[in-house]
Amino acid sequence: MELDPHVIGVTASYKLLIGCVVPRPIAWVSTVAADGVPNLAPFSFFMGVCNDPPTIAFSSGRRVNGRKDTVRNLEHTGDFVVNVVDDLHAEAMNATSGEYPPEVDEFALAGLAVAPGVLVRAPRLLTAPISMECRVAQIVPVGRGPHSVVFGEIVYFHVRDDVYDAKTGRIDVHRLQPVGRLAGHQYAHIHDIFEMKRPDENYKG
Amino acid sequence: MELDPHVIGVTASYKLLIGCVVPRPIAWVSTVAADGVPNLAPFSFFMGVCNDPPTIAFSSGRRVNGRKDTVRNLEHTGDFVVNVVDDLHAEAMNATSGEYPPEVDEFALAGLAVAPGVLVRAPRLLTAPISMECRVAQIVPVGRGPHSVVFGEIVYFHVRDDVYDAKTGRIDVHRLQPVGRLAGHQYAHIHDIFEMKRPDENYKG
Repeated sequence: MELDPHVIGVTASYKLLIGCVVPRPIAWVSTVAADGVPNLAPFSFFMGVCNDPPTIAFSSGRRVNGRKDTVRNLEHTGDFVVNVVDDLHAEAMNATSGEYPPEVDEFALAGLAVAPGVLVRAPRLLTAPISMECRVAQIVPVGRGPHSVVFGEIVYFHVRDDVYDAKTGRIDVHRLQPVGRLAGHQYAHIHDIFEMKRPDENYKG
Repeated sequence: MELDPHVIGVTASYKLLIGCVVPRPIAWVSTVAADGVPNLAPFSFFMGVCNDPPTIAFSSGRRVNGRKDTVRNLEHTGDFVVNVVDDLHAEAMNATSGEYPPEVDEFALAGLAVAPGVLVRAPRLLTAPISMECRVAQIVPVGRGPHSVVFGEIVYFHVRDDVYDAKTGRIDVHRLQPVGRLAGHQYAHIHDIFEMKRPDENYKG
């Protein structure tokens, strides 16, 4: 099957894109508006960028309400928090994915507890297994639409004790139980884990 | 556990970053060098960006050989192909993740068949379940290191017939069997799939 985006169009291309780039990590992004209302919304166009400084990026459309709130807020405060979604928070994350007006506090809507950021004005999700406080590094406009690709420098990590292996400095993914995003209504549990050693010895990951 | 990247340093921050942003999709990127040698290397700092035009991005360090080859090649030709890694190709993908000099053809090294691109000069992996031919849209330098975030417009999709549902225009993830990247030597099979309906009715994903 060969498909040309110019022939099939934007909607069909989107369906392909979300089915081809899988599984996606979920950035459950919390921000605060100028009037103090917290916002929480999930984004799965999300990636690690580099480690010096530790940087992540996510892409947000500008037309949909929930996403627009996030970008408007982080442009205002210059910061945001990425909370990690685990199996226990899947339903709550989904509840915050709706298109709500700016005055809606998705923490309250989904019955979630807010905690203050240590180094940022944005709040974090108290019960998240991991939260990363981020300062906006740059915002790159992309595509028609348009979309904003938000680059954030991670300035503070909150990691629940039991998912952090202090001996190795690594996250224990078996305990973390993160949720992966697929297409449509589909998500994946990350329970079926396997290992492969890299073919070279320079590997320090 | 609270961790400040400035206190724990770059290497420890990297370990956290790759453990926190999970599961990651894998872009198995093929390019061709000016002298005609094909290159194939996996990148898991990879995301969808937007649908108009359909765009993806991945981040590449510049110092490691395999990654440097990819960016040098795509800067030269202006294009690349993202091949999707399924369970059947996991071992071969891993074989191409080593740090090899530019003259090494990772297709040959891993016993993989090359096919020409339709709209790009970069080759694609003949046996991949999905290949996305991309033109470089922009390259954003990020961080010390430095890293390059490569934005690519998808100009052509190759999708194996059995993973494409022609009725819905969607990818069948049960048949695709994509591999997710975790930290260290760990990867995830995407076999444990569940569904959640979005809380609003505006959803067209």
